[in-house]
Amino acid sequence: MYNTNIWHPCTQMKDYEKIPPLNVIKTEGRYIYTKDNRKLFDVTSSWWCKSLGHRHPYIINRLKEQLDKYGHTIFANTTNDEIDRFSQRICDLTGMNKTLYAGDGSSAVEIALKMTIHLRSFQHKTKKNKFVCLENSYHGETLATMSVSDCGLYSNPYKSLLFESFILKNIPYVTGKNDPLWSNAENYWLDSKKYLEQHKDSINALIVEPICQGAGGMLLYSKDYLNRLCKWCKENNIYIIFDEIMTGVGRLDKLFAYEYLDIKPDFLCLSKGLTSGIIPFSVVLTKDEYYKMFYADELSKAFLHSHTHSGNVLGAVVANAVLDIFEKEDILENVNHLEKQFLEAFTQLQKEIPILTNIRNIGAMIAADLDISKQRAGLDVYRESIKLGALLRPLGNTIYWLPPLNSTFEEINQLKDITKLSILKAL
Amino acid sequence: MYNTNIWHPCTQMKDYEKIPPLNVIKTEGRYIYTKDNRKLFDVTSSWWCKSLGHRHPYIINRLKEQLDKYGHTIFANTTNDEIDRFSQRICDLTGMNKTLYAGDGSSAVEIALKMTIHLRSFQHKTKKNKFVCLENSYHGETLATMSVSDCGLYSNPYKSLLFESFILKNIPYVTGKNDPLWSNAENYWLDSKKYLEQHKDSINALIVEPICQGAGGMLLYSKDYLNRLCKWCKENNIYIIFDEIMTGVGRLDKLFAYEYLDIKPDFLCLSKGLTSGIIPFSVVLTKDEYYKMFYADELSKAFLHSHTHSGNVLGAVVANAVLDIFEKEDILENVNHLEKQFLEAFTQLQKEIPILTNIRNIGAMIAADLDISKQRAGLDVYRESIKLGALLRPLGNTIYWLPPLNSTFEEINQLKDITKLSILKAL
Repeated sequence: MYNTNIWHPCTQMKDYEKIPPLNVIKTEGRYIYTKDNRKLFDVTSSWWCKSLGHRHPYIINRLKEQLDKYGHTIFANTTNDEIDRFSQRICDLTGMNKTLYAGDGSSAVEIALKMTIHLRSFQHKTKKNKFVCLENSYHGETLATMSVSDCGLYSNPYKSLLFESFILKNIPYVTGKNDPLWSNAENYWLDSKKYLEQHKDSINALIVEPICQGAGGMLLYSKDYLNRLCKWCKENNIYIIFDEIMTGVGRLDKLFAYEYLDIKPDFLCLSKGLTSGIIPFSVVLTKDEYYKMFYADELSKAFLHSHTHSGNVLGAVVANAVLDIFEKEDILENVNHLEKQFLEAFTQLQKEIPILTNIRNIGAMIAADLDISKQRAGLDVYRESIKLGALLRPLGNTIYWLPPLNSTFEEINQLKDITKLSILKAL
Repeated sequence: MYNTNIWHPCTQMKDYEKIPPLNVIKTEGRYIYTKDNRKLFDVTSSWWCKSLGHRHPYIINRLKEQLDKYGHTIFANTTNDEIDRFSQRICDLTGMNKTLYAGDGSSAVEIALKMTIHLRSFQHKTKKNKFVCLENSYHGETLATMSVSDCGLYSNPYKSLLFESFILKNIPYVTGKNDPLWSNAENYWLDSKKYLEQHKDSINALIVEPICQGAGGMLLYSKDYLNRLCKWCKENNIYIIFDEIMTGVGRLDKLFAYEYLDIKPDFLCLSKGLTSGIIPFSVVLTKDEYYKMFYADELSKAFLHSHTHSGNVLGAVVANAVLDIFEKEDILENVNHLEKQFLEAFTQLQKEIPILTNIRNIGAMIAADLDISKQRAGLDVYRESIKLGALLRPLGNTIYWLPPLNSTFEEINQLKDITKLSILKAL
């Protein structure tokens, strides 16, 4: 029996009997170095958060400077220049006007869920309390965020504590921006609309990962479908929550995925890449019109959600540094190049490994499925990849790349070779 | 209307029209320095987390050294020496043997709640899914943690999304360790037992803040009552979750509050003081016997809860440094002195301000209530205190001290004077 004091997250610990955890001794750029002398390309940006790779020197310097000045303080009744500056910048970038801070993605989604329900209580519409989400959606691991997700593998054991949501089925998944469904998914929408119309009086809010669903299998879906869905929500007094925890901050060839759409959300949740995964930090962006509804003499009317590390200045310093680097190093330009390089690479891989099917690609994300009956083939691919120099961590049997946005052409070329060999050796 | 881009946590934003937020420019030791030249003693340890004050030089040095080596990596399939060492130390200190990591208190409690329910599914006892909590309890701000709490002010607007829990009423509150009820609360317990016996078949787990309830009003309750309650849980196959997010890591004159009891919990949640509030970090401690039930060939049997920053090495480095300082600087000895000094100070204050009632005190925590009809008198006390050099932030009309555990005798003497003047001026 594999046994230490650590129970690792999202892991069947028995797997460690065959593949013990890697002992990390150094991280730099896109690489993780281990005690047993491996240098591993971080293919999935360490759970999708290392947007600018590990320990970007500019960020580390800014963080160290901050450590010499001041750290986190209670964020009720205090503020600081770094969080003020970041709040202004992120509002300017998104056109939103209010920021609420938490420490991770799930907490951000919880804030948005709670706030929509709270707003309904002001409107005396407490029966308008259901959420709509998409099939294969994932919005976090707390019980409430799992209640508005459709990832049975993660949530099934806890069903008795979850509240019910409406789940839209038969989503128009696409291969990318050139897929005809990307720009026109009217038929799919009409089916969804029929379903939604039956329930609209009880629907409080829609929550989606716009354009790209992460944990559900790195799935892309039609921007036209999402546009129509959001437009319908606007027309029917239904709040729109965009969970851009994975899609935001440049991942999808735009600073934010909502830029593909004609409509903006009422609540926008960001985390992960926001600090390049260096400091836990998340933000919910929203609008003045909602803020005003909580603005009153009574304490009981306030949005009293608190979070020990809300507004943590270390997170703000790092988030400001990330935005600086986006400007200085033209990260979005690099993402645009990566998108093309990724597609060429996977198209080539598919020719050599025909069981690699269903390629979908946008920005610095590409995925394809291993079309074989063998369960957990992905785990075997992972095992081979760490021998060859990459931490390639499939989602089930879905092979995907989601590396730091500043990955270089040469690094991706190497990754292509490692991916090919890993799959061939594993199968 | 007060308006910036920031929507502060746990705040009625309109209050800022009268008391704008303090702009922090430096933190050091027990003090927060502001742009308008204030030097403020951090009376509540910035939401109870700054166990060793701000920017302890030993911690900051260790953190900077770590930033030069490696940062967070995905914690599925990786580990590192710092988290290995911390896990071993915290298990040795608690006698538990498994650690699960998250980023804040709520996430830690969510892990514990989910795991108990998951264990019931292995036992085919899915109807044994109710939680028991205490009146005035508080376990976090996510919807599930609010479902196992009794803080209506925070949870009322979200009722329709909460699951129901059993709430034990008429808890034997005490003034401290010398209160007779502290050691014998049999009568209270017998009433609770009557209630619990009716429901025991559906009860999955008990969750409590042992000995001291924080957000509910800094309330102390009988260790004998808790002992009896826990013993009954053990006898009736009910899991015990201790939320020591506020009480743990030395606050209550023991390293952990459970040390007052004869029984240990099945799940122990720690955060806040664990890193002196420098890096968001939390841990759930549990036992091998539960770990083994998830240990299998099937992925679907695993505990798949994940958290981007789980096992963050920056948190581990800081948590190790905190434990080092506890040893090197004999923090528990200082807490023991503070307990006595606090009680003398409040006893004196009460003589001079008779409306200060119901003093309760343990370790580096003391609280008393302003016995006046004026609502939000606490806010006026806060306003006076920041003029006088302390960030004294009452909970409603409860005045309390919960300063860093390494506060000095002189600092507390000054705090006594500031507290007195703040109350007198406010009323």
